Amino acid sequence: MIIFNRVAILGAGLLGASLAKALKKRKLVNRVGVWSRSEGTRQKCRLLTDVFDEVCQSPQEAVADADAVVICVPTENIAEIASEISQSLKEGSIVTDVGSVKGVICRDCLEALSGSPAEFVGSHPMAGSEKIGVDYSEADLFENRPCFVVADEITPAAEAISMMWKGVGMRVYGVSAREHDAIVARISHLVHLVAGTLCLTVAGYKRDLRPFSGPGFRDTTRVVSGSPEIWDSIIADNQTEILSALNEFKDSLDELIAAVENLDKPVIAARLRRAKQYRDEMK
Amino acid sequence: MIIFNRVAILGAGLLGASLAKALKKRKLVNRVGVWSRSEGTRQKCRLLTDVFDEVCQSPQEAVADADAVVICVPTENIAEIASEISQSLKEGSIVTDVGSVKGVICRDCLEALSGSPAEFVGSHPMAGSEKIGVDYSEADLFENRPCFVVADEITPAAEAISMMWKGVGMRVYGVSAREHDAIVARISHLVHLVAGTLCLTVAGYKRDLRPFSGPGFRDTTRVVSGSPEIWDSIIADNQTEILSALNEFKDSLDELIAAVENLDKPVIAARLRRAKQYRDEMK
Repeated sequence: MIIFNRVAILGAGLLGASLAKALKKRKLVNRVGVWSRSEGTRQKCRLLTDVFDEVCQSPQEAVADADAVVICVPTENIAEIASEISQSLKEGSIVTDVGSVKGVICRDCLEALSGSPAEFVGSHPMAGSEKIGVDYSEADLFENRPCFVVADEITPAAEAISMMWKGVGMRVYGVSAREHDAIVARISHLVHLVAGTLCLTVAGYKRDLRPFSGPGFRDTTRVVSGSPEIWDSIIADNQTEILSALNEFKDSLDELIAAVENLDKPVIAARLRRAKQYRDEMK
Repeated sequence: MIIFNRVAILGAGLLGASLAKALKKRKLVNRVGVWSRSEGTRQKCRLLTDVFDEVCQSPQEAVADADAVVICVPTENIAEIASEISQSLKEGSIVTDVGSVKGVICRDCLEALSGSPAEFVGSHPMAGSEKIGVDYSEADLFENRPCFVVADEITPAAEAISMMWKGVGMRVYGVSAREHDAIVARISHLVHLVAGTLCLTVAGYKRDLRPFSGPGFRDTTRVVSGSPEIWDSIIADNQTEILSALNEFKDSLDELIAAVENLDKPVIAARLRRAKQYRDEMK
């Protein structure tokens, strides 16, 4: 089923290029235009002739006749791109993004697009991997992954964007920007920061412990291999919720340390049982 | 190459049964005897006729003519089993264990066996999985995993035990009991406890966040699914080093929280880069 006639993808990284492939593979759109800041990436896109119908030199050119625009550039550039395209958007078109923080981005994008004929809906498809760039893109990246759609009310635009993400295989959840940021602070940002802290602690030991590390340490710290560059803006944009999450974690850690100091076996056992039960009940 | 003529395995859980399979598959021993406390497990062992040559009703019976004895019971029972077999061991035989903490266990086992004709060498093969019991045992469990052998000096007994673990595919490292406990406190115990604390923190949010969790949270907390029962004795036996590791981790967490509070981007970026580099350089 065709959801949008023409879609413009701005930014052809892992997410943007994978979305283009997914939309084409599942026949959800007729045409996909793409813009990338990098000529090298544009050249790679030109070779993907069954994915990209147009490879544009500017974001304005890419969005000019698009019914939906998906901004897939790094978080810190999303609002800037929204500003740049605001006067080139088609009447009645919809703009969304894939930023991993929503409060600041939705506010800035709504402002940037306030004088445009387009409607903005925030998205956060939670898909990806440590591998980045168009070279690793794949049509099935979104399969069965969660996606947040942020809109204060259920508008036709929010419904159309939700259908697009459902169309590429995602489980879509509607949330407020504030709740989104509280959720990702805990299940994503806290997880990365704690795993990084674990690496640094083990790295601080007087001897290199990596030869002795098994799959437990390897799995627990795998997320740390992701690109560190994205964190500057994530932490700036979601500082309040990340701090809340870190302090909740620290309170729990303090409870644990006290229990180990006092060899309080019932408390330690209850914690481990609760954690295991929570983990085991994950689908 | 035959390393031991007869080996006795005491305890036929995942490690004990896998070791028996590995020793037989690689033709490192002539005969394997086994004892398990549970009649159900003994019955399963009797069906593994190409692995176990004798299934014994008592540990004393199992060790009577063994050249090497591997105590594979849960950590808290290792020293007790050493006591029980001390008067039944063959002259010149070697006893080892697979306990995940070495200071307390080696001290207690050396004491338990001080009047026996056998020599004790501590081992900690770092292999396993969340799956426990003889049903999940496999000959390749030890392949390329690290194994610690604890002996104050390089005795023929320590060398023979090292050869056994190398024979089943492990990378063997000789360490003191104290260094062993410091190492596993950081790469194993800390990792489990931090991952558990992460689960509890996320579980404490007002909404069930598991539907939104991706592979990052899943991998980071996978170790939490292990059996919680083993931790009572691990924490009691390795309390000092676990506390040191937890406090090192907490110091690093405090540094991170301060950096997030102050939006100190250079510190945050440097931490994430160092953590990523450390992780990426893991073999």
